[in-house]
Amino acid sequence: MHTYLENRQLSDALNGYKAFLAPMLKPLETEIIPVSAASGRITACAVHAKISSPHFNACAMDGIAVRAADTFNASELSPVMLNQEQYRVVDTGDPVPESFDAVIMIEDIIFHGDCAELRAAACAWQHVRQIGEDICQGDMILPSYTKLTPSAVGALLAGGIIQVEIFKRVRVGIIPTGDELIPIGQSPKSGDIIEFNSHMLRASLIEAGCEVAIYDITRDSLEALNNALLRGVAENDAALLIAGSSAGRDDYTNSVISKNGAVFCHGIAIRPGKPAVLGVCGNKPVIGIPGYPVSAAIVLEQIVLPVISLLTKNPPPAAHIVNAVISRKIVSGLKYMEFLRVKLGYIRDRLVAIPMARGAGAIASLAKADGVAVIPCDSEGLDSGDEVEVELLRPLDEILHSVTVVGSHDPMLDIIGDIMRRKSDYYLSSAHVGSMGGIMALLRDEAHIAPIHLLDLATGVYNTTYEEKHFPGKETTLVKGVKRTQGIMVQKGNPKGIMSVSDLKNVTYINRQKGSGTRILLDFLLKQNGISADDIDGYQNEEYTHTAVAAKIAAGNAGAGLGIYAAAKMFDLDFIPVADEEYDFLIKTETLDNPMVQTFIETLRSEELKTELEKMGGYELYER
Amino acid sequence: MHTYLENRQLSDALNGYKAFLAPMLKPLETEIIPVSAASGRITACAVHAKISSPHFNACAMDGIAVRAADTFNASELSPVMLNQEQYRVVDTGDPVPESFDAVIMIEDIIFHGDCAELRAAACAWQHVRQIGEDICQGDMILPSYTKLTPSAVGALLAGGIIQVEIFKRVRVGIIPTGDELIPIGQSPKSGDIIEFNSHMLRASLIEAGCEVAIYDITRDSLEALNNALLRGVAENDAALLIAGSSAGRDDYTNSVISKNGAVFCHGIAIRPGKPAVLGVCGNKPVIGIPGYPVSAAIVLEQIVLPVISLLTKNPPPAAHIVNAVISRKIVSGLKYMEFLRVKLGYIRDRLVAIPMARGAGAIASLAKADGVAVIPCDSEGLDSGDEVEVELLRPLDEILHSVTVVGSHDPMLDIIGDIMRRKSDYYLSSAHVGSMGGIMALLRDEAHIAPIHLLDLATGVYNTTYEEKHFPGKETTLVKGVKRTQGIMVQKGNPKGIMSVSDLKNVTYINRQKGSGTRILLDFLLKQNGISADDIDGYQNEEYTHTAVAAKIAAGNAGAGLGIYAAAKMFDLDFIPVADEEYDFLIKTETLDNPMVQTFIETLRSEELKTELEKMGGYELYER
Repeated sequence: MHTYLENRQLSDALNGYKAFLAPMLKPLETEIIPVSAASGRITACAVHAKISSPHFNACAMDGIAVRAADTFNASELSPVMLNQEQYRVVDTGDPVPESFDAVIMIEDIIFHGDCAELRAAACAWQHVRQIGEDICQGDMILPSYTKLTPSAVGALLAGGIIQVEIFKRVRVGIIPTGDELIPIGQSPKSGDIIEFNSHMLRASLIEAGCEVAIYDITRDSLEALNNALLRGVAENDAALLIAGSSAGRDDYTNSVISKNGAVFCHGIAIRPGKPAVLGVCGNKPVIGIPGYPVSAAIVLEQIVLPVISLLTKNPPPAAHIVNAVISRKIVSGLKYMEFLRVKLGYIRDRLVAIPMARGAGAIASLAKADGVAVIPCDSEGLDSGDEVEVELLRPLDEILHSVTVVGSHDPMLDIIGDIMRRKSDYYLSSAHVGSMGGIMALLRDEAHIAPIHLLDLATGVYNTTYEEKHFPGKETTLVKGVKRTQGIMVQKGNPKGIMSVSDLKNVTYINRQKGSGTRILLDFLLKQNGISADDIDGYQNEEYTHTAVAAKIAAGNAGAGLGIYAAAKMFDLDFIPVADEEYDFLIKTETLDNPMVQTFIETLRSEELKTELEKMGGYELYER
Repeated sequence: MHTYLENRQLSDALNGYKAFLAPMLKPLETEIIPVSAASGRITACAVHAKISSPHFNACAMDGIAVRAADTFNASELSPVMLNQEQYRVVDTGDPVPESFDAVIMIEDIIFHGDCAELRAAACAWQHVRQIGEDICQGDMILPSYTKLTPSAVGALLAGGIIQVEIFKRVRVGIIPTGDELIPIGQSPKSGDIIEFNSHMLRASLIEAGCEVAIYDITRDSLEALNNALLRGVAENDAALLIAGSSAGRDDYTNSVISKNGAVFCHGIAIRPGKPAVLGVCGNKPVIGIPGYPVSAAIVLEQIVLPVISLLTKNPPPAAHIVNAVISRKIVSGLKYMEFLRVKLGYIRDRLVAIPMARGAGAIASLAKADGVAVIPCDSEGLDSGDEVEVELLRPLDEILHSVTVVGSHDPMLDIIGDIMRRKSDYYLSSAHVGSMGGIMALLRDEAHIAPIHLLDLATGVYNTTYEEKHFPGKETTLVKGVKRTQGIMVQKGNPKGIMSVSDLKNVTYINRQKGSGTRILLDFLLKQNGISADDIDGYQNEEYTHTAVAAKIAAGNAGAGLGIYAAAKMFDLDFIPVADEEYDFLIKTETLDNPMVQTFIETLRSEELKTELEKMGGYELYER
């Protein structure tokens, strides 16, 4: 049984926790290192210049050094002639010779043998970089607790400092726990979970300037956890216990932290991430991280990094926030602040946020996301078209140069995206919402391109009927894509002996979502064969991509599903072809000359794509 | 003689150079490394999942696994009783046992001995994380040329990938050139310049993910430069020649690049940074970097990093841009885009940008700047109060938590700032514009606190007269600071035998800027002694801080100057006391309860500051 002791607001939890920790924390240890290796590190004490910069009066021009007093009467009408005792030829950077105090540019001098004629007076110290102009000996160049930037490295070296006392990196110990975990590199058996959270968290912590130790996986026993915690705390400045994904596991964490120190808060009103445990042990922060990877990543960013900045007194790098318009209604609980992964498209001068998978376990969706939209605690969610703040996960520049493809799924989109990355200055961002979803996205200006394969049940014609219906003003162009073979995917060896659509009555089916071209094709085929949807066991079970359907069949979760040959091949399934369909790209005509869209079309027609599709099989390209 | 061949607009120069380079560049070499060490690196090819994630059907709740079909008739009125063959007890994360297809939460079950009573039907696959829910085997997790984020590390490991092919880091060779240069760590003689540019540039390049080799300083000969260039190009993917600060030196760079390759552009319409040389040699980018350190830093950011992103196909991290109001008029050339270093203050809900030193040699001003304001090419400059875009150099959070102190200079401000960094959550940002400048800043809401020491020439009273005059509505509070001793600073041993203000007629004086309290004090003392400003040689020569005045005297640029004891001590000067003055802090009464201002005042009253001021000498604190 598990209970969430609390449901604290994020800001309350974080600020309270920081205030709770602050009086206990000890300063980090310090070390002395060369300034040239100190960029990004944090000064342990104020640094004062040892020498001035410049440390001598330096000529700032090529020309002659003079005594300004000797030139005071010079003018166009009464030039002054300096003899060779009264000037010295100098170059930029030379020291101003003893007893001289000004420099005259070479262009302003007329030489007569050894004498120099001047037609204007010089002011004292003109064209001279005076001693200490940049840095005065003794000046505080940097205060303590200051992160050294590259220019600070330059300034310290200019001030004659070559070593600097800095704080050692914050050492964080990561303790993964759970009987189901196996280390990376081992082949997982059913029930095993690859322990990758620690590596993901370490990467973030290293980016934040920490030193990280990952401990061996601790099994689910209070004693083992207790020992691991004590070791982690003794050897580090902070410890993270990754609690495993089982419900109730965080209570173990709670118990061992309470026993050896104190728990400040257990349960935060965020989603994903709510079962976090915030505690202290041996005057060091100890945080219980939820085991679902997206929860772990969010707790790290929202709690762990700000707590580490307490030790360094340097705030974590600011998030880059942009405003975007959400593409569909999102219902969110009033009790939680939700962190929603989104794809971003830049269409008609505005950013559109397309929601992605919301599960706490979906780490790939975090890896592929362009940003994270924050839905506040007191909101029931977002309506389609609402403005929302999005924290960027990719550079904005990349998002602004990405062609946004929303609609039917095909693995060829990933291949086109890969070729564009390698061969062009543009990127591809795709979201899989089915063919009809693509048409809707195009209508609402939430996509540049909608891939569709929509069969007119009446005529058997692909795509054009739908285009004409939804864009009666003929404002779109249908760019022909590929012919691809759809078929029934079944387990290797076809154990149920499926030969045609009629046999689908004898098997558990796995369907695609409403509005997808593949589902429309199924409905067409069922109608052709006089079969009712009610006769298909599993008709209600929906997946969003061909590969997801293939994966379910390979795992035995379903006996058959409609999909493309490439997906069947990926999972080594048998494939019974049932139709050749036309997978095309619907584009608003006015955006055809957008260079990102042009690059997409060029890539679609490229030899390289052709080669890749031939390797995958099941595609037929049009004549070019 | 030097000539700037061109004055190309920055965007033209950069885009043209990139287009010029693109067809020549070869792809970077690749290597295979563990995924767990690959965060921040760039994929060399697309990465496909080896296993699905989850790779088995996993229970998402603690409870029992059932066959959904066995439960279809269950309801509140007619519960269904499952026998022990019909269910299995499962925990979250367990595999769903063979032939079962749904999980029922433990809370929803009533056990009767071995039998389980259900009062609701289960849908197929409820509370099950189905195989491939996150990642399907064969799916492209990342395309090529993609920077691995921590969550991408997680996703690859979840997909069974433990090694990944990435591009090697871009290798950049830095070649410092110039006869006047000495390596860091050597004691500079007059005319020597410490070669720190290479270390500053290396720090920026490492931050951008490059591997950097710094070569020995190359002396000013075409042959040496030629050899260094050929070696730098042979051993790296790109080479930077730092051209030294002498005018005309960049022509050497120009010549050797032309001889061994081609120069695309020489001279960019930016300030600082204009004499950059953009070229190619051996199909690799070669860039001539100006020798003034601020120019070097700006050319690195504006040209070198974008060119390196051509090789990695990943844009440099986006600058964080904020809007601010400029605090004073800035005249800027129409022919150049200017990068102006600024301090930022957050006062009354708006950001104020206070311009700093503009010289290309002032690296400390770049190190201390909060941001860089960009004044476009076709602008004659900015008027006080104009809005300007500022690229942040410090985290915004730090700027928003900084108390902004604008006015008279005293080294104690640096000490207060250092104590605040160590002991509080707030920061101090100071700009030195003299006492009157501070009053003006306070009037225009461009500062929280104005340090002043303004003597009423008529009454001999400090500060209050000025406060009453400029804030007749009594909206300010004068927080008493310190009494400090002003005196005449002269070279060690007092060679000119200065005993009092009257003796200033016999020496070259170095003055403070108009509006500074120290200058007003001088004028008062001169008047008292019946001396005219015209009788003081050097009265027109101005410096902005006590330490800058002391540095000039120590170097012999001037024979005497007025300043505080601490500055004289820093430069080992003799000090003839002439007045005790009151250095106080003027604050708008309404901001007294601002926690940053409170922290400043608390620090002013702290034991720690008292100890530091006693060490420096020349200060007297008020009774507390």
